[in-house]
Amino acid sequence: MTTTQQDCRTLDAQDPLRELRQQFSLPDGVIYLDGNSLGVLPASAADRVAKAVTQEWGQGLIRSWNSAGWFDMPQRLGNKIAQLIGAAPGEVVATDSTSVNLFKVLSTALSIAAIDTPERQVLLSERSNFPTDLYIAEALCKERGLTLLLVDTPYIQAALTTDVAVLMLTHVNYRTGAMHDMQAVTASAHTKGILCVWDLAHSAGAVPVDLTAAQADFAVGCGYKYLNGGPGAPAFVWVNPRHTARDVWQPLAGWWGHAAPFAFTPDYQAAPGISRYLCGSQPVLSMSALDCGLDSVLAAQPLGGMQALRRKSLALTDLFIELVETRCAGHGLRLVTPREHAQRGSQLAFTREQSPHAPPPRGGDSGAYAIVQALVARGVIGDFRAGDGGAIADVLRFGFTPLYVGFEDVWNAVEHLRRVLESGEWQRPEFHHKSTVT
Amino acid sequence: MTTTQQDCRTLDAQDPLRELRQQFSLPDGVIYLDGNSLGVLPASAADRVAKAVTQEWGQGLIRSWNSAGWFDMPQRLGNKIAQLIGAAPGEVVATDSTSVNLFKVLSTALSIAAIDTPERQVLLSERSNFPTDLYIAEALCKERGLTLLLVDTPYIQAALTTDVAVLMLTHVNYRTGAMHDMQAVTASAHTKGILCVWDLAHSAGAVPVDLTAAQADFAVGCGYKYLNGGPGAPAFVWVNPRHTARDVWQPLAGWWGHAAPFAFTPDYQAAPGISRYLCGSQPVLSMSALDCGLDSVLAAQPLGGMQALRRKSLALTDLFIELVETRCAGHGLRLVTPREHAQRGSQLAFTREQSPHAPPPRGGDSGAYAIVQALVARGVIGDFRAGDGGAIADVLRFGFTPLYVGFEDVWNAVEHLRRVLESGEWQRPEFHHKSTVT
Repeated sequence: MTTTQQDCRTLDAQDPLRELRQQFSLPDGVIYLDGNSLGVLPASAADRVAKAVTQEWGQGLIRSWNSAGWFDMPQRLGNKIAQLIGAAPGEVVATDSTSVNLFKVLSTALSIAAIDTPERQVLLSERSNFPTDLYIAEALCKERGLTLLLVDTPYIQAALTTDVAVLMLTHVNYRTGAMHDMQAVTASAHTKGILCVWDLAHSAGAVPVDLTAAQADFAVGCGYKYLNGGPGAPAFVWVNPRHTARDVWQPLAGWWGHAAPFAFTPDYQAAPGISRYLCGSQPVLSMSALDCGLDSVLAAQPLGGMQALRRKSLALTDLFIELVETRCAGHGLRLVTPREHAQRGSQLAFTREQSPHAPPPRGGDSGAYAIVQALVARGVIGDFRAGDGGAIADVLRFGFTPLYVGFEDVWNAVEHLRRVLESGEWQRPEFHHKSTVT
Repeated sequence: MTTTQQDCRTLDAQDPLRELRQQFSLPDGVIYLDGNSLGVLPASAADRVAKAVTQEWGQGLIRSWNSAGWFDMPQRLGNKIAQLIGAAPGEVVATDSTSVNLFKVLSTALSIAAIDTPERQVLLSERSNFPTDLYIAEALCKERGLTLLLVDTPYIQAALTTDVAVLMLTHVNYRTGAMHDMQAVTASAHTKGILCVWDLAHSAGAVPVDLTAAQADFAVGCGYKYLNGGPGAPAFVWVNPRHTARDVWQPLAGWWGHAAPFAFTPDYQAAPGISRYLCGSQPVLSMSALDCGLDSVLAAQPLGGMQALRRKSLALTDLFIELVETRCAGHGLRLVTPREHAQRGSQLAFTREQSPHAPPPRGGDSGAYAIVQALVARGVIGDFRAGDGGAIADVLRFGFTPLYVGFEDVWNAVEHLRRVLESGEWQRPEFHHKSTVT
């Protein structure tokens, strides 16, 4: 029997995480299914950032590097992130962007491999990885004369040969929401002597991650998605302590990664541990907002933490799939995210295939973009990711952040989707105009 | 005849830039001579950042990438910075940290040199350059098997040989305030076929800079000093258009530097022009504050712009030197900044040498640190930079930002300094305790 709206209300009433939603400032009339792209504002961030601006900067001025604790924010916030990804205190710093951090760890991983396994010339990744990961890898391989080998996901296992120096993967795919088994993949790679670099952009705060148990080598991740750190919030970086102990520099060897930054010595001496992965000064105002975002996720710790968030996330996504497949049947939407719980993160992607009920939209595309725009106009915010014109199709993408998304939200979102499809409302010309960013 | 306090009041009353101070929120009772380290809060930033948090992020959410103009902030802010450094619109982006940007341009400069002058194996800089510049250079030279040659400032000219691929200098020295003649040095280097990378951290917004007239090759600079962008504000990068046209990647080739970032293609294609020097997402909240900081400097444009700011800066620093040398005579303070206008920026440094009037302080150091602390306790905020224990001595450092520092401020600051020295107040134990950051 299909779940009803009343059932959803009951699920919300019984939800042990329900109170966590009170932490957030959600606009009226919005159902937000895009926390995988930009998390919602934690209400505390408004005061926290205002304090950073008017008191810490305005009144404290330069003294606030000490008195307001600006100096150790990368480590202090890093310790909060560590609790969400199975890392120990002192193993994570919040800093720079995901792309910049990826450059640091991928460089280091390749440098270590060049010492330990100098005959290996291949950096392996998957073709569907997030583009910036592939670009950073491409640039590094070009620089070092290595080969970047991109394979389709099913062939990763077979590609783990003794030619490969480093395997770089994103844990949860940005487009499809498919999730790798981090522990199994890392173990397979290690048996072949391959180092593993994981991008947790769509995992941190979304699914349980245990870098220590997986014995991963390097990881980076994003502050502004499920960690609710605000637009362009600083990212993070983790390195297994067995590698920070190595005598290898990360190449962005700026003064913040120096053992004694304020000694102002002319020669570089790397700080012990993860601090050597810092480079320059961090944007304190944006870091302050990230601090609130991290607290909003850590607020779930007394209620079961990431395991409890994961249970709710799976219940929400299972419900969304069920309702789309029953209430929106016949409109050509097809789930591309794996159904298996262990194989997906906290987001879902659907393609739209030829519909028996409606003519093809203007321009002959799949209609996925216009459907997303029509939903946004109704206050249901998901997003669109373009296909590559070939094997990878355009998708409608919906993220479910269990901190602030409820079961009735899911019901209402699907009801809007049903109306958009049944009325043909999405075929209006205004929904087909593509803006710069989607 | 020595300038009197009344003379200073008259100078303030006649100052054509006096009104610009109204833009800033300065704490009561503070004379701020540290704008070379962290600029003062522009009053507009409180509302601007609050709007970015509550409206753009809170209400607009992901839609604000388009509707609030987040997407083109690096270019829009870059165009404002361009007006202050003699660059054309479209030639500058605000992004990342100075250290990260230096890595991008230094890598590119070395890559271009490797094509054009492959026999050259030396990266030249000066020993007294800001440490992070030297660390980034050291890491890159290590990576590429090049030699980092550090010389003392008087020997730079002689070191410009045909062995040198790239010359990297900071325009205004962070410690001494000494300024290079950018145009002359660049011209000398170019006659030897050497590319020039300039760090404008202590120049942008402080002294007139004309990168185009100097025909410089690459430049980076800081957003949080004289540009008043807030703690850890994003930095900027400029590349001469003759180099952005070259088929050379900067190695931090992230998606924001891609020609079509939202096409999500697996292979990297560099954006045209300076946009290829972007890497990942930028911290929007901190960028919003930087936007206000840039406006606070551009507010001087109708009043004569950087030339007018420079005139006032030189008048302020001349006055400070005169008053210290007359009113604080006999206490061992010695100016290390060049007196010649053309050879200094907008900051002054003094060492303290053995005083005939006072015993050496506890610990046997120069006392510079304790004097700075005693001044801070009186609300006169300058800072201290440690020497290297050898040729480079400890200094008291004072920055003069003519947007908000007045002539009577200078008089009062020196009066506090006189009292600190004459009373021996700086020898109190509490002023000798060194905190992590100074």
